[in-house]
Amino acid sequence: MAAPIDFYFDFSSPYGYFASTKIDALAAKHGREVVWRPFLLGAAMKITGGAPLPSVPLKGDYAKRDFARSAKYYGVEYKLPSTFPIASQAPARAYYWVNRKDAKQAKALAAALYRAYFVDDINISNADDTVAVCARFGLNADAARAAINDPEVKELVKAEVDKAVGRGAFGSPYIVIDGEAFWGADRLEQVERWLASGGWKY
Amino acid sequence: MAAPIDFYFDFSSPYGYFASTKIDALAAKHGREVVWRPFLLGAAMKITGGAPLPSVPLKGDYAKRDFARSAKYYGVEYKLPSTFPIASQAPARAYYWVNRKDAKQAKALAAALYRAYFVDDINISNADDTVAVCARFGLNADAARAAINDPEVKELVKAEVDKAVGRGAFGSPYIVIDGEAFWGADRLEQVERWLASGGWKY
Repeated sequence: MAAPIDFYFDFSSPYGYFASTKIDALAAKHGREVVWRPFLLGAAMKITGGAPLPSVPLKGDYAKRDFARSAKYYGVEYKLPSTFPIASQAPARAYYWVNRKDAKQAKALAAALYRAYFVDDINISNADDTVAVCARFGLNADAARAAINDPEVKELVKAEVDKAVGRGAFGSPYIVIDGEAFWGADRLEQVERWLASGGWKY
Repeated sequence: MAAPIDFYFDFSSPYGYFASTKIDALAAKHGREVVWRPFLLGAAMKITGGAPLPSVPLKGDYAKRDFARSAKYYGVEYKLPSTFPIASQAPARAYYWVNRKDAKQAKALAAALYRAYFVDDINISNADDTVAVCARFGLNADAARAAINDPEVKELVKAEVDKAVGRGAFGSPYIVIDGEAFWGADRLEQVERWLASGGWKY
């Protein structure tokens, strides 16, 4: 079986959210698994000198329209959160905490966290709100809260972020298939053709 | 007849080049005309704080692969020019000079300039090289050279660049249909659906 596809994303990224609703089904069609790897865009921006989209003149205004229009294009429920963008340490920690024991459950939790933020306007940058999502998801609230504050989990997230950036992830989503990187929900068509053809020379 | 589509692009932009090979046919399928409006990304970057892609850590390396891969994806001839990116005043001036008299001929010249840069590796930032492309295209070389140095043509380009940025063009290509803006060759699918459906609520 071919190596799994790496799906890097930030919980604060609308394009990461859109891609997260498509990537597993797309990969499965071609017999591939996907490993979800949340990371922190802020760490990449320190290297690229990038800034959060809404703060960029011209581009920021465009981005808000493009988020909403792209959601409609992809057929994904979406509402610009009241607070956007956000620091996404809390959901990333919750994710990697669960992922240590159960990758499948962690992925389902990530989907729930994305929905909480981009559909229900819950500010998951707050530890309490991420804990509440975890609880509704069926996890123990106290254990989730402890995990988010656990130095070991914090270190684990930091290590994952370093690995992601080390692999070149500078945006969200950033999808790596057999060493080939694809940036953006708008590269899913190329991802599809890549998988269908087993890669192509260029 | 519906208003023409505005196609803003920089002669130094690979994604602008890719889109330029598709946009007219796409629009024509839906009974729409396209007005080509070269502008200078540098002017927009002064506002957005953006930097030329190759100079951005991580993103720059990715971009070069994505240019080549996307060219293949779109089925467009392409080679990363030896000098990239370039200042594109000379080709923009040649374009608007011709465009004053003949929009159709100007568009064909723009296509020739794009090919010269992205297929034949001719550095069209040099006035002499842009003049040579104009001459091969059938224009008078002396007249082309004079136009590139003509203060009136320079002013015309400056005014067009100001208008483009004033309309929000911060990247290339930047496509405006009935007030709706689409940034990137990778938005052609959304452009297509937009045209096919007469726009959509989002």
